[in-house]
Amino acid sequence: MAIEFSITRRVEFSETDLAGIMHFTNFYRWMEICEHEFLRSLGLSVDMEDENGRFGWPRVKTSCRFKRPLRFEEEVEVKLIITEIRDRSITYAFQFWKEEGGERVKAAVGEVVAACVRFDQASGSMAPIMIPEVVRSKLDI
Amino acid sequence: MAIEFSITRRVEFSETDLAGIMHFTNFYRWMEICEHEFLRSLGLSVDMEDENGRFGWPRVKTSCRFKRPLRFEEEVEVKLIITEIRDRSITYAFQFWKEEGGERVKAAVGEVVAACVRFDQASGSMAPIMIPEVVRSKLDI
Amino acid sequence: MAIEFSITRRVEFSETDLAGIMHFTNFYRWMEICEHEFLRSLGLSVDMEDENGRFGWPRVKTSCRFKRPLRFEEEVEVKLIITEIRDRSITYAFQFWKEEGGERVKAAVGEVVAACVRFDQASGSMAPIMIPEVVRSKLDI
Amino acid sequence: MAIEFSITRRVEFSETDLAGIMHFTNFYRWMEICEHEFLRSLGLSVDMEDENGRFGWPRVKTSCRFKRPLRFEEEVEVKLIITEIRDRSITYAFQFWKEEGGERVKAAVGEVVAACVRFDQASGSMAPIMIPEVVRSKLDI
Repeated sequence: MAIEFSITRRVEFSETDLAGIMHFTNFYRWMEICEHEFLRSLGLSVDMEDENGRFGWPRVKTSCRFKRPLRFEEEVEVKLIITEIRDRSITYAFQFWKEEGGERVKAAVGEVVAACVRFDQASGSMAPIMIPEVVRSKLDI
Repeated sequence: MAIEFSITRRVEFSETDLAGIMHFTNFYRWMEICEHEFLRSLGLSVDMEDENGRFGWPRVKTSCRFKRPLRFEEEVEVKLIITEIRDRSITYAFQFWKEEGGERVKAAVGEVVAACVRFDQASGSMAPIMIPEVVRSKLDI
Repeated sequence: MAIEFSITRRVEFSETDLAGIMHFTNFYRWMEICEHEFLRSLGLSVDMEDENGRFGWPRVKTSCRFKRPLRFEEEVEVKLIITEIRDRSITYAFQFWKEEGGERVKAAVGEVVAACVRFDQASGSMAPIMIPEVVRSKLDI
Repeated sequence: MAIEFSITRRVEFSETDLAGIMHFTNFYRWMEICEHEFLRSLGLSVDMEDENGRFGWPRVKTSCRFKRPLRFEEEVEVKLIITEIRDRSITYAFQFWKEEGGERVKAAVGEVVAACVRFDQASGSMAPIMIPEVVRSKLDI
């Protein structure tokens, strides 16, 4: 069964631009916020440690298709669906839903591929790793 | 011949995150900044008017593939290439280049499809339009 | 009696910088978010209309004193207190509270003076106005 | 003689909000960008190391008074003036200048007090320190 999760957010003033709508970069920020809340709901974090040190989830590829603008103070559901789990990465699909004229419409759809990496504190470098057991057990994989 | 344009930017402190690298949403912001500078270089703007009113270029679809992290104060070339011009939209490809160990490496590649729309001041709505003549003439199409 | 209001927020990943703490500009963004939620709680908005047209609340002066850094995923209470209401402006004080070592500590204090202005749609200009009745009645002034 | 420095920037699309003007938080971001360029002009950085480890300059207090709105694509001079150097902090004043109707007008004035701190890599904590010699020598103090 698909792993799904969702959050609800309201468009903030600072997220709008002079065209009166949410600036497109914020759709990506919201996807990340939803992903992090999802990890938190499992007792995980995007920035955590296991016995081998600190690991994280930089983005490998992201995309978004915009269908309807979001306006200031609109309430939006951001829905996350895990579409693929590989040895070293997770692919998330996202949907943005809002009310418009009494109907529920999809404002945007996005995708994020996040790779699991180990941070080397000394050098500041990152190396891809197998998704650690602490994460796999929570995702039931 | 392909229409190309490029800008150079340095990673700002506020663009980094706790992983010590540029937050991925800023790649999208930089693509937009490069696109707007390109329009400006032609005497155009992303927010302009012709005899029929105000028009603009909301994003229809954007994507980015991240290959190397960008770090604070690194100097990066953002290169824009127009890959398709349709009746109502323009597709831009972007490349992010930086120096690493004496070599020039591609840090990321992105794509933006921007649709031309007319703003209706009264209602605040946007409707797709044919790319206006003032723009077509500058792009030699 | 003082008018008070508060919200709780968690520090987002994109709000941190390479020093591992919330970038200071976000304290200002949070003050604004709190102010807008406060207006919304009264049935008002920062972008609204009365019979004379659209009006808003640009900032005249803002300041913030930072005492403790905020870290990723920390939960923070942002507390708003109206400290002065003049004919054409409102002054808000803000406090940022978090838990640290079992204690509740003040991470920052800020102030915002917001002036009431009328937007002229045609020219795009803004002119200071007396705070409209629709707002005064909700604030009991 | 006062230490002065200035940069010129153009208002970006993503820096505007639905009121059609630059969102106020960006004035603070620009002050920081100017400060970092200033440090860079001296061969310094806001994130650097000496023989005792890594040190940086978190903000202690910032403020800004807004006089004129900045609009999309406007060119603005941000001017930095060091107004005080103490043992453990530097105070910078900032002025924002633009052209308006053929005249040069001050759009905003700001102030930043930045404290010098040593980062402890292991604990992630920061402790105030005397401004290191590598900085003092460049500032001629």
